[in-house]
Amino acid sequence: MKAVRTHAYDTTPVLEEVPDARVQGPLDVVVRIGGAGLCRTDLHIIEGQWEPKTHVALPYTQGHENAGWVEAVGSAVSHVAVGDPVILHPLVTCGLCGPCRRGDDVHCQASAFPGIDADGGFAELIRTNARAVVKLDASLAPADVAALADAGLTAYHAAKKAARRLAPGDKAVVIGAGGLGHIGIQALRALTPAELIVVDRSPEALKLAGTLGAHHTVVGDGSQVEHVLDLTGGQGAEAVLDFVGEGGAVEDGVAMLRRAGDYHVIGYGGKLDVPTIDIISSELNFVGNLVGSYTDLVELMELAARGLVTLHTSRYPLDAFSQALEDLDAGRVRGRAILVP
Amino acid sequence: MKAVRTHAYDTTPVLEEVPDARVQGPLDVVVRIGGAGLCRTDLHIIEGQWEPKTHVALPYTQGHENAGWVEAVGSAVSHVAVGDPVILHPLVTCGLCGPCRRGDDVHCQASAFPGIDADGGFAELIRTNARAVVKLDASLAPADVAALADAGLTAYHAAKKAARRLAPGDKAVVIGAGGLGHIGIQALRALTPAELIVVDRSPEALKLAGTLGAHHTVVGDGSQVEHVLDLTGGQGAEAVLDFVGEGGAVEDGVAMLRRAGDYHVIGYGGKLDVPTIDIISSELNFVGNLVGSYTDLVELMELAARGLVTLHTSRYPLDAFSQALEDLDAGRVRGRAILVP
Amino acid sequence: MKAVRTHAYDTTPVLEEVPDARVQGPLDVVVRIGGAGLCRTDLHIIEGQWEPKTHVALPYTQGHENAGWVEAVGSAVSHVAVGDPVILHPLVTCGLCGPCRRGDDVHCQASAFPGIDADGGFAELIRTNARAVVKLDASLAPADVAALADAGLTAYHAAKKAARRLAPGDKAVVIGAGGLGHIGIQALRALTPAELIVVDRSPEALKLAGTLGAHHTVVGDGSQVEHVLDLTGGQGAEAVLDFVGEGGAVEDGVAMLRRAGDYHVIGYGGKLDVPTIDIISSELNFVGNLVGSYTDLVELMELAARGLVTLHTSRYPLDAFSQALEDLDAGRVRGRAILVP
Amino acid sequence: MKAVRTHAYDTTPVLEEVPDARVQGPLDVVVRIGGAGLCRTDLHIIEGQWEPKTHVALPYTQGHENAGWVEAVGSAVSHVAVGDPVILHPLVTCGLCGPCRRGDDVHCQASAFPGIDADGGFAELIRTNARAVVKLDASLAPADVAALADAGLTAYHAAKKAARRLAPGDKAVVIGAGGLGHIGIQALRALTPAELIVVDRSPEALKLAGTLGAHHTVVGDGSQVEHVLDLTGGQGAEAVLDFVGEGGAVEDGVAMLRRAGDYHVIGYGGKLDVPTIDIISSELNFVGNLVGSYTDLVELMELAARGLVTLHTSRYPLDAFSQALEDLDAGRVRGRAILVP
Repeated sequence: MKAVRTHAYDTTPVLEEVPDARVQGPLDVVVRIGGAGLCRTDLHIIEGQWEPKTHVALPYTQGHENAGWVEAVGSAVSHVAVGDPVILHPLVTCGLCGPCRRGDDVHCQASAFPGIDADGGFAELIRTNARAVVKLDASLAPADVAALADAGLTAYHAAKKAARRLAPGDKAVVIGAGGLGHIGIQALRALTPAELIVVDRSPEALKLAGTLGAHHTVVGDGSQVEHVLDLTGGQGAEAVLDFVGEGGAVEDGVAMLRRAGDYHVIGYGGKLDVPTIDIISSELNFVGNLVGSYTDLVELMELAARGLVTLHTSRYPLDAFSQALEDLDAGRVRGRAILVP
Repeated sequence: MKAVRTHAYDTTPVLEEVPDARVQGPLDVVVRIGGAGLCRTDLHIIEGQWEPKTHVALPYTQGHENAGWVEAVGSAVSHVAVGDPVILHPLVTCGLCGPCRRGDDVHCQASAFPGIDADGGFAELIRTNARAVVKLDASLAPADVAALADAGLTAYHAAKKAARRLAPGDKAVVIGAGGLGHIGIQALRALTPAELIVVDRSPEALKLAGTLGAHHTVVGDGSQVEHVLDLTGGQGAEAVLDFVGEGGAVEDGVAMLRRAGDYHVIGYGGKLDVPTIDIISSELNFVGNLVGSYTDLVELMELAARGLVTLHTSRYPLDAFSQALEDLDAGRVRGRAILVP
Repeated sequence: MKAVRTHAYDTTPVLEEVPDARVQGPLDVVVRIGGAGLCRTDLHIIEGQWEPKTHVALPYTQGHENAGWVEAVGSAVSHVAVGDPVILHPLVTCGLCGPCRRGDDVHCQASAFPGIDADGGFAELIRTNARAVVKLDASLAPADVAALADAGLTAYHAAKKAARRLAPGDKAVVIGAGGLGHIGIQALRALTPAELIVVDRSPEALKLAGTLGAHHTVVGDGSQVEHVLDLTGGQGAEAVLDFVGEGGAVEDGVAMLRRAGDYHVIGYGGKLDVPTIDIISSELNFVGNLVGSYTDLVELMELAARGLVTLHTSRYPLDAFSQALEDLDAGRVRGRAILVP
Repeated sequence: MKAVRTHAYDTTPVLEEVPDARVQGPLDVVVRIGGAGLCRTDLHIIEGQWEPKTHVALPYTQGHENAGWVEAVGSAVSHVAVGDPVILHPLVTCGLCGPCRRGDDVHCQASAFPGIDADGGFAELIRTNARAVVKLDASLAPADVAALADAGLTAYHAAKKAARRLAPGDKAVVIGAGGLGHIGIQALRALTPAELIVVDRSPEALKLAGTLGAHHTVVGDGSQVEHVLDLTGGQGAEAVLDFVGEGGAVEDGVAMLRRAGDYHVIGYGGKLDVPTIDIISSELNFVGNLVGSYTDLVELMELAARGLVTLHTSRYPLDAFSQALEDLDAGRVRGRAILVP
């Protein structure tokens, strides 16, 4: 099969012929790729930033946001059949450890992460396992939803946690209306009756946020904290979802939070740096958010099938991968870049 | 009536005769003090540390951990009668704002705090309101439980939040087995089947923790993180309750936490300073804890009546208040100091 | 003031002049009625059906769904002022008992129910208390929302409980698209991403349900269970909200329920009659629903102010009350009948 | 291997030599039986009562409460090894359907039930799968805990659900202190601070309940409802756990319930027959309870390892199975009968 292989760091990967991915164990599933999302993490991997964490052996195939059609299944796979359209949960989990048994499979004690520490989806075929495949509704094309498999799933997961305590009359602030944030806005609209206040530096991003259902948009021009306090009667919001996580976003976000409010950390890069007296005197909560569970992905695909979550994509043929990498690096991609074999 | 009045900062308060506390509004309750807890906050008030927050007009009466007997009630008070033994929730709340109506009265939008920003309980009588008084079981003497009204209530509140997700097989780490911590240990034992690991620098405090139900005790001698990881199979604990909140406790506590674990901030003084990437990659939660609600205090008194939460106290007559202050400052008080008029 | 007084059972009430409602206690609020809902319960009261429960002394004034403007307040009322537009929670609660302190004021141990066991709102003025008044958004006219105070609040309360466990992909069945049901449908749409299946005998009611957001409508013509099973892949729905509660609705509803599903009992009249083996083998839950709390009413008014919950009303001047009663009895009222002084 | 085989209904099973249970699929686990609980269900199977439900092909081997040591594992089994002591969750679940993925494996859409509809544990070896085996603490002998695998797990599951809303000061009524009930009492003591009121017709059973931690015991002599109301201040209990489910227990239990209380249906045989008006006017909940999940069994084994849940057993060698059946039928077994190969 054809695959885009990363042979060395700081070097453009190479499209080449490699042996087909194939079923090796009873729970394995091989999927013919319909689309694989390309994201900033892929640039960072090429730069070598992830090597100290993954120690992945080169060459290997990147691509961690994948969807396609089942090509082959292991002997113990019963819930999907060859030809089924599927999206792939990013993790290959064991199904037997404590977290897996509680439905909290993201904290599986023996998981693999294709595209990050194992061969991923910038190829014609990928090997994953039965616990990772979610069957797609007939209305959904794999290439259209592939990018929801990781970034979208993270945003959905955070929105779902936030929604648990949001009631009519409550306000939720979304910091950052970019790739994850605009999925978060759609998920919050689907899951909660709270009013959404979206903060971003880019007026264009805010315009999109408005069309996706934001009730209020606030330009991040220095007056954003004051503006949010105005919109919340001076009390602050019940929840802040921070899709940025660096460069002043955290300080701003904490200042926008109401007493007993929830601060959802989704973006990262900076620090949470808060005096403990502020945490106790306002009784604040800080909630970390990793990618969602398999069940979360099933739910997100339900929303997608009903048109409640949509994604802008720019498709590139697999052999145009280096163009896609360049466009992404240069900020020229509208929506999400998808490699289509 | 007699009252210990704070006339100036950095000056010993004075026992003097003042007009009796009396009912002024329909929901007021006047309580004859049976015991009033004296705590470190009282020393800080005298030092003037709280003035910038409260702007309280001097002279006034301190004492924010109070219990006694109902002396008089306003016209709209129906649930307690003159003579009833009661403990006082530290806050006088409005009962009409959103948080009050949800049972979350600690976040009342119009509360007063007797002993901090209004006349408190270092006196023969105190004025509070109907929403603050919890009737005591006949088995409980006001002077024995007074100190549970604030410090104990905070510890109980945190233990209750932690208990919500603790199951058999889970581990909870208690950092700090002092005044609040040793109530927290007893509350956790009553509320959860989790195994308790108590960390403290003082072997004596740990000995007490053991008698109160700690399953494991760990001396904070530099090896505490390693020791806790050993006790948790290298995974860390599902919950950490930090009753210290400064001086390395936070860093230690975060290192003792399992993936998806809850860090309860109770003690304060230091900073929560954590890279956002650590929060998201382990999906940690940080939970602020303020004093408990009225309902929490009712529950804590149930545990006290059944002997499941007990407190060591040292009683001082009201006119020995300056001795009590000196003993507290010098670390000579065994358990909690209680002023008894 | 003018009031419609019930002097005897089975006799048309009389519009007459009575002393003005006035503030009697510190927490009392007198409200000038802007609109009072007239409902089937009012017919039953006149028929004497409620006498054995309430033992109310005649003559008295009915009307338990009230909204208007604050006319006068007691000395301890701080959160509303004369002239404020308000809707009235149906219960006058004590604020001091255990349930009130937990925000569960519907189970107050010392409540009154104006219009049922005390003078209600078929009058120019009504006396209630501070804990019952919810300030209205400027966009809402009291007469337009009055009927949400009891029937609507019950439907909202049930929808809110049901919504807690409903995720994308789940199905909720609403049995009965009448007065309560059509509020329930709107509330479910606002609170949950689940697909709604509405069952009713009346094609007209189903048509309205469709415009209010039902995803599927099913005529109750005998094939309704089969039809719902078809719509749920043969598994049944995660939740059934039964706004009928009699005449075969319960048997149907249980048959439409998925394993581990929730059956919400809202309408009443019949019996829940289920073998315990069926309850345990499918692990079903049956959830009783009474009227909502004060907080629920605040939330419902938020939805109303945003246009997410609307109500058809037919207004009658207060002196046309007997016409309204006749129209209601004859089934000639479109939407809810509202008496406007 | 030796196995006790049921060849025909209404006929004593036969101990005979059959081929060894062996690994057939990659997730299979074969366990050498250390003990297999014999319960009333086994008598009912022999009487043919279960045939219409299971259509199991005869001859087959009964025994659905099993524990022992791992004898062999399939190629995909990673979390247990040959020789490990294990207890077996009663269901063999698929791990891939929606309920399995949420940790709600009891509602697996493709499960088998060894001992009921497949060969069970009245034998030297049993075949189950990787998802059913829970590793035992070294302190626990398989024969001592085997009977917790089904009956005990059901009682634990119900206690865990009840505990979620029980706070200090709340009361929980346990109806029936027999086989399941006495495990329920121990689980409630471990999981909740509520006071336990145990109702049974047998003074002996109540005596045992007292030693296991019941705070109050009430003889079911006709005055039990009145007695429970006395113990709950006339209000009724927050939760009733009904381990009987027939013969007046349901009517009694509902009468013992407080407003907004939870009725847990565990025992079965009778009917839940309640007017819907009673359900809504007191806002009652009825909660069905089936056997617990895998995670529940892990937690129950934690309690057992800590000595918080214990079981009386009477052991019989496998070849004395017919004596065990006779003793059980005649009510001569003290505690639970365990067959030991």
